[in-house]
Amino acid sequence: MNAYQIIAKKRDGGALAADEIDYFIHGYAHDKIPDYQMSALLMAIYLNGMSFAETATLTRSMLESGIRMNFKNIPGYKIDKHSTGGVGDKVSLVLAPLVAAAGVKVPMISGRGLGHSGGTLDKLEAIPGFRTNLSIDEFYQQIDEIGVAMIGQTERICPADKKMYALRDATATIESVPLITGSILSKKLAEGIDGLVLDVKTGVGAFMKTADDSRILAESLVKTAALNDLPTTVFITRMDEPLGRAAGNWLETREAIDYLKGGGASDLMELTLALSAEMLLMAKIVRSAEEARHRLNELLNSGAAFRKFCQMVEHQHGDVSILHEPEQYPRSKYELHIKALRDGFIKEIDALTIGLSVVQLGGGRLVMEDQIDYKAGILLHCQIGDAVKKDQTIATIYSDREKAIAEVDCALSKAFTISGECVKKPSLIIDVVRP
Amino acid sequence: MNAYQIIAKKRDGGALAADEIDYFIHGYAHDKIPDYQMSALLMAIYLNGMSFAETATLTRSMLESGIRMNFKNIPGYKIDKHSTGGVGDKVSLVLAPLVAAAGVKVPMISGRGLGHSGGTLDKLEAIPGFRTNLSIDEFYQQIDEIGVAMIGQTERICPADKKMYALRDATATIESVPLITGSILSKKLAEGIDGLVLDVKTGVGAFMKTADDSRILAESLVKTAALNDLPTTVFITRMDEPLGRAAGNWLETREAIDYLKGGGASDLMELTLALSAEMLLMAKIVRSAEEARHRLNELLNSGAAFRKFCQMVEHQHGDVSILHEPEQYPRSKYELHIKALRDGFIKEIDALTIGLSVVQLGGGRLVMEDQIDYKAGILLHCQIGDAVKKDQTIATIYSDREKAIAEVDCALSKAFTISGECVKKPSLIIDVVRP
Repeated sequence: MNAYQIIAKKRDGGALAADEIDYFIHGYAHDKIPDYQMSALLMAIYLNGMSFAETATLTRSMLESGIRMNFKNIPGYKIDKHSTGGVGDKVSLVLAPLVAAAGVKVPMISGRGLGHSGGTLDKLEAIPGFRTNLSIDEFYQQIDEIGVAMIGQTERICPADKKMYALRDATATIESVPLITGSILSKKLAEGIDGLVLDVKTGVGAFMKTADDSRILAESLVKTAALNDLPTTVFITRMDEPLGRAAGNWLETREAIDYLKGGGASDLMELTLALSAEMLLMAKIVRSAEEARHRLNELLNSGAAFRKFCQMVEHQHGDVSILHEPEQYPRSKYELHIKALRDGFIKEIDALTIGLSVVQLGGGRLVMEDQIDYKAGILLHCQIGDAVKKDQTIATIYSDREKAIAEVDCALSKAFTISGECVKKPSLIIDVVRP
Repeated sequence: MNAYQIIAKKRDGGALAADEIDYFIHGYAHDKIPDYQMSALLMAIYLNGMSFAETATLTRSMLESGIRMNFKNIPGYKIDKHSTGGVGDKVSLVLAPLVAAAGVKVPMISGRGLGHSGGTLDKLEAIPGFRTNLSIDEFYQQIDEIGVAMIGQTERICPADKKMYALRDATATIESVPLITGSILSKKLAEGIDGLVLDVKTGVGAFMKTADDSRILAESLVKTAALNDLPTTVFITRMDEPLGRAAGNWLETREAIDYLKGGGASDLMELTLALSAEMLLMAKIVRSAEEARHRLNELLNSGAAFRKFCQMVEHQHGDVSILHEPEQYPRSKYELHIKALRDGFIKEIDALTIGLSVVQLGGGRLVMEDQIDYKAGILLHCQIGDAVKKDQTIATIYSDREKAIAEVDCALSKAFTISGECVKKPSLIIDVVRP
C-alpha cells in the first residue's frame, strides 16, 4: 500500500478500504504524506465522491489523529449543537445555557467567523474578559459544575482536520459532501458527546445554496454519524436573510442577551426552540416536543436560562456586569441609518451582502489573522414580510471606519428588496432529517 | 485571477482561458504557485479533461517556460521523431542517421529509460565516450555540419514540464491525454523543428494499453501540434512483443549497427522504413512513399547511413572503433540460454516482462538515480509467428548479476507463449494519423 496507489484508486472511482484511508490520513497528519499528494486525493474525492462507509471511515480516521474527550465520569446526557454557518446566527449563545438550564450537559466547541459567516467564539469574546481557550481539564470541570461550557478548537482535537481544511481552502476542495461531513463530525465525535443536533444552513447567505444540496449533506451527516454510533438530528434551515435582527459580534451577543431576558425576533426564537427541544428529546428528559417547548419557555421566562448564561460567563472570566447593563458597552464612532426607498413589503434581505458588509465595517475577517472590532455591525429593523414606509429606517450601521460606512451604505440599499405586494415570510425550518 | 479560481473552474468542468493557463503554468514554473495547488489542478484536468484549444495553450505555455531553439540560419528541413516508449525500441539509432543521410536535418532530443521502458540516450551512451550533453551551440553546429545530432533534455528546455512531470509521477496524474500531449509536444516545439513524426506505442509493453486509447492520444497530438503550427504525423504501432530481437542498451545499439550494415529483424526494418519515409515525404525531398523507400534502401545498402552514424558518434566523442568491431565490446559475466518448453509457434512474447527483466539484470532503472550496466539484457532468437522446437534456444540472458539471472530465467519462461497452432504475426503498424 502506498499513497500513489490510493490516489489512483479514488481517481478511478474505486471505494477506498478502511486501511487505505487510515494509512493516508495518518500519514498526512504525521507529515509523511506531502500536501501535494493529499490535494490530489482531495480533488479525486471531490470529483468522484465517497460512499457513506468510506465517509464514516474518513471521519473516524480524522478523529483518531487527535484526542477524544471522555465525559464518562460526569453524569447526565451530553449533547452539542453545530451550525454550518450563516449571518446573524447567535442561536448557540441562547441554546447552550437554555438546554443546560433544563438539566442536559452542553460541552460546546465552536469556531470563529471567516468571510461573510460569523463565529460563536467571536461573539462570546465580545464580552470583555471572556476566555474561550479553557484547558480540557477546565472544560471537564465546568461541565461537571454548571453543565455548560463554550470553548474553541484545541490543537489536540483532530489535527488532521485542521491541516486538511487549510489545504482544501487553497485547492478548491471545500464544497465536497464527504469532506465536509468528515470535517464536521470528526470534531464533534472528539467531544465524546452522546448526541448531536446539526443546523445545515441553506440559501444565499450559507455555504449550501440549495435545499437539495443541503438534503444530500444532511443525509451524509446523519448516516456517517450513525456509522460512528453518534445519534444525530439535522435541521435544514433557511439562510436567505440574516437570522434575527443583528449581524456583528457584540450586536448579536446583545440580541442573545435580550432574548434570554424575554425579547427577540420571532425567527430566532422559532429556530432556537426547535433545536433546543430536539436536544431535550434526544436526552430523554421530556416525552414530547410540546413538553420540551413548555419547559424551555418556562426556563426563559423564569430567568433560569439567563442566570445559566451569566454563570457560564462568570466561570469563563467574562464581565457579567455588561450582561446586566448592555447599554454600557462602548459604541461605534459612526452610526448611519438606512432608509426604505419606497412603501411596500420587505421581500428580500440579502444575507451574503449583510455578512460581507459586516466584514467591511470591521466586524469580521477576510483572513484568520484579521483583528475584529466587536462593536461593528448592522442592526436590522425589519425582516422579510414586514410592511415598511418610504424613508422609514430599516437598518442601522455601526463602525469606527468612516470610509467603510459610505461604501456599505451603497451596498446595503441594494440588499433590501421591497415589493408593492404583500409578502409572506417563508418558514425558517425547511426539513428535519433523523437517522 | 488567482490559482484557486482556476482550479475551481477546471474542477467544475469549465474550459480554461489562455490567460488562466498561462498564469498557472508561469506561476508554477517560477515557484509562485505551490505543488499542492498544481496537483489539485492536475487531478481536475485528469478527471475533467481539456479541449484541444486548452491543450494547445497548455503546450505553448509549458514551451514558453524555457528557451526555444532556432534553426533559421541553418538551411534545410528540420524534423524529429519521438516514441512514447517501449521495449527494444532502437529505431531512433537507425532512423536519425538514415534520414540525415537523405539530406534532411535531424536535431533529436531523447530521453532515458525508466522502469520497463528503455531510452535512446542510454543506448547511445553504451558506446564508450559518447556525449549526449552537448551545449545548445554545439548542437546547432553539429546539425549544420553533418545534419544529425542526438542529445538529452537540457534544463533550459521546458522547465515547467520537468517540474510537472515529477509531480504527476507522485500524484497518479500521468495517464491524462492533455497532460501527456502537453509534455511531449512542448519539448518537441522547443526544438524549433519544421515537422515531427510520433510513434505512439500500444500494448502490454507500452504506456497506452489499447489501440482505442492510442487513437485518442494520437488525435490530441496531431490537433494540438497543428494549433501550434507544427506539422505532425502519428504512427500507432504494436508493442506487445519487444521490437526487434534485442532488449538492453548495448545489445540494442549493436542490433542497430547490424541493421545499418544491412541486417536486422523484419519488424524493426518495417517500422524504421515507414517512419523514415514519412519524414522524407514531410520534408518534400521525395514525391511518394515508394520513392522514399527506394532512396532509404539505397542509403542503407550503400553504407551511407552507417557512415552518417559513425560520423555522428565521432562528433559526439564516441569510440567509433567499436562500431566497426562490435564483438570487441565487454561481455557479461553470465549468459544463460532459455529453451522452448514445447514444439509449436510463438504466440506471445510479453514485452513488459522482458522490459522488467532487463531492469533486474542491471540494464535499466527503477529510479532515475540507478546506474546502468550497458552490457546487460536479453537477446531474443525468435519473434511472434516463428516455429520453434522443444529445447531450442529462444532467448539468451546477459548479466553480471548471478542471482538476477536465476530469477529472470523463471520469469522469462512464462513470458513466451507457444501455441500448437500456426500463428500469423500481426502487422506492426496499426494506424497512421495525419492532420
